[in-house]
Amino acid sequence: MKTLRRSPEPIHVPKGFSFAAIAAGIKASGRPDLALACSEGATAAAVFTRNRVVAAPVEVGRDCLQKARGRIEAVLVNSGNANCATGAAGIRACQLMCRELSERLQISSSRVFPSSTGIIGVPLPAAKIVAHLPALTSSLTPEHASAMQFADAILTTDTRRKIASRRVKVKGRPVTLLGIAKGSGMIHPQLATMLVYIFVDFAATSSELNKMLHEAVEETFNRISVDGDTSTNDTVLLMASGQSGVRAGDPSVRSRVHHALHEVCASLAEQVITDGEGVQHVIELYVEEARTTADALQVARTISHSPLVKTAWAGADPNWGRILAAAGRSGVAIDPHRVKIYIGDQLVCREGASCKFDAARAHRALRRPQCVVRVRLGLGRKSVRFLTTDLTSDYVKINADYST
Amino acid sequence: MKTLRRSPEPIHVPKGFSFAAIAAGIKASGRPDLALACSEGATAAAVFTRNRVVAAPVEVGRDCLQKARGRIEAVLVNSGNANCATGAAGIRACQLMCRELSERLQISSSRVFPSSTGIIGVPLPAAKIVAHLPALTSSLTPEHASAMQFADAILTTDTRRKIASRRVKVKGRPVTLLGIAKGSGMIHPQLATMLVYIFVDFAATSSELNKMLHEAVEETFNRISVDGDTSTNDTVLLMASGQSGVRAGDPSVRSRVHHALHEVCASLAEQVITDGEGVQHVIELYVEEARTTADALQVARTISHSPLVKTAWAGADPNWGRILAAAGRSGVAIDPHRVKIYIGDQLVCREGASCKFDAARAHRALRRPQCVVRVRLGLGRKSVRFLTTDLTSDYVKINADYST
Repeated sequence: MKTLRRSPEPIHVPKGFSFAAIAAGIKASGRPDLALACSEGATAAAVFTRNRVVAAPVEVGRDCLQKARGRIEAVLVNSGNANCATGAAGIRACQLMCRELSERLQISSSRVFPSSTGIIGVPLPAAKIVAHLPALTSSLTPEHASAMQFADAILTTDTRRKIASRRVKVKGRPVTLLGIAKGSGMIHPQLATMLVYIFVDFAATSSELNKMLHEAVEETFNRISVDGDTSTNDTVLLMASGQSGVRAGDPSVRSRVHHALHEVCASLAEQVITDGEGVQHVIELYVEEARTTADALQVARTISHSPLVKTAWAGADPNWGRILAAAGRSGVAIDPHRVKIYIGDQLVCREGASCKFDAARAHRALRRPQCVVRVRLGLGRKSVRFLTTDLTSDYVKINADYST
Repeated sequence: MKTLRRSPEPIHVPKGFSFAAIAAGIKASGRPDLALACSEGATAAAVFTRNRVVAAPVEVGRDCLQKARGRIEAVLVNSGNANCATGAAGIRACQLMCRELSERLQISSSRVFPSSTGIIGVPLPAAKIVAHLPALTSSLTPEHASAMQFADAILTTDTRRKIASRRVKVKGRPVTLLGIAKGSGMIHPQLATMLVYIFVDFAATSSELNKMLHEAVEETFNRISVDGDTSTNDTVLLMASGQSGVRAGDPSVRSRVHHALHEVCASLAEQVITDGEGVQHVIELYVEEARTTADALQVARTISHSPLVKTAWAGADPNWGRILAAAGRSGVAIDPHRVKIYIGDQLVCREGASCKFDAARAHRALRRPQCVVRVRLGLGRKSVRFLTTDLTSDYVKINADYST
């Protein structure tokens, strides 16, 4: 997906945060696998996986946020082990690493937010993590380089670092947002997860953060899909230091901060999808003229999860019949006779039936790393944009490898 | 899937039916592509695709059944063209072929039931069909060989004929059921469909047929899946000649006839799934101890449609974490701590966590052409059996080929 990469955005580090990362020996490769971000007195909000099977750190992290009433001062992330399907021992291991870190930082253990990503069903080597905490905490710095080390240490099978940043001036003061993510589109062999951390230096209560985070996630991370397999560890954490001196609750500030947060989430979502395992083509799918947003989203998800549609995209095949058939089985009361489908800049299906189009041109459009597909339902005014991918032989190969 | 094939069942032709097939030049290959089955005075019932996008013959066939109040005397099937997404011209072409046949057979045109299967979005060459009707009708015979020709002429990318039959003695009289199907698991490149015709010689009203057909379909064809892509042409037609002299409505007869119908449907469903495109492994999935059958079915479908689970099966990888995660996102309120998962004859996950098992033995079990996977939810007494397949590189290759 090299051609999809944008020119690198300037990365700014918000005030009031420090970062560190280290190799604790969890990954067999010996690469960095333990990361820490700290901010004294910060507020926070989080969104978690909706999967009923959740990893230990998701359970513990959810409890922390409740107990500490939205005050989180440290985020401790390990890669190489998801601490999922590990039973009561997994919960104890997670609590141990949080408690040990809190004692070292002299904060309440409920203000330490844990995350894990990696293999499922293998006990977390908590002793290794605990043994490396002194070296980790002593290397905390607010430098740009430390934030980059944090971003690298949380990766698993990702092929590149995922990071986005915005700086906006509000009332003459710079406000900075920094987002860091990992994930190859929720499709990892025995690995879990999309993890996202967004660090900001505006001030906001936990409930304000919660509201703005849910809104941003709904329109970004909830509108990407590689295969519809929701992971057991998915977490998006928003953490605000308040050190820019700007309050997000101020009406004149709110919309600019919301917009910047949305942009950071959208950029990270796109970085996750373009780094999906086996992905050769990203499809920017618009479902338009639906009765409701929920209808538009349901049609978009059904098309995005259809193996027939996704394999056609892998072959750059402008096979609109499969797109129409997927929309038809979505559960939304569409009227096929009103449906129009566009591939690239061409109308390929009108009134639910074939229309003349240049198949070679449509094929060329789909062969590009990113292509727009538009499905107009002709029923209303609501629309959604959804990012999805093709389904390639590489995806099957990566995920079919015998791994036990 | 050769090893999965059962020894050929004896095929019986029910009384009161005649069959014919011919090459009408719709398939580029020149192979037979037009099939006819007739039975004077027969009653019928049908189940159609739930896709909102439906092919012309499905619309016309549904109308026929209503207008003729469940009396169908002829079934005319073409392969090579699905007559789907062909607009008003497609409806007219379908009506034309029914009308021409009805005049030749001297029956009402609403007693002719049409079906089409093949490429989507291409006008049906109705003139070719009409031109071949004289030769087709003049070759109608009740012979075994003619029924086999019918079964062959409706195939598209199927690699083999799909046919099942049962003969039961009721009150000293033989009652015969013959089922004929086509479909490679609803996964065809630009091709639609699973078509099933079941011919029986017991007597039943259309509403009796309707009831027994829905029951049988729910537990057989609705419990198989290759990829969850419901086609636009799916049709199951049950047609009763009554010529055995046995009435299905008779209480002493009902259960035996129902059982035989269920067996025919189950056999055809299995024949369809084992001939799915790219299929290397069939999984016999049991979801047990659910609160309701609907819950069990929803968990089974989510597991069966998970690309992560299906690619693991392609690699014969006993990756129970993916199965558990798919159950977790199914929307059913499962309790992960009660879940047990079995692969082959081994328990591989207990209380939602890893338990010791012989990974090599589980791998060997999954390498067989058919393997049992059991998911016990620990919540109730309901269970379902669901047949599904792996997702292989061959599937992607077959479906990604640029076809326009």
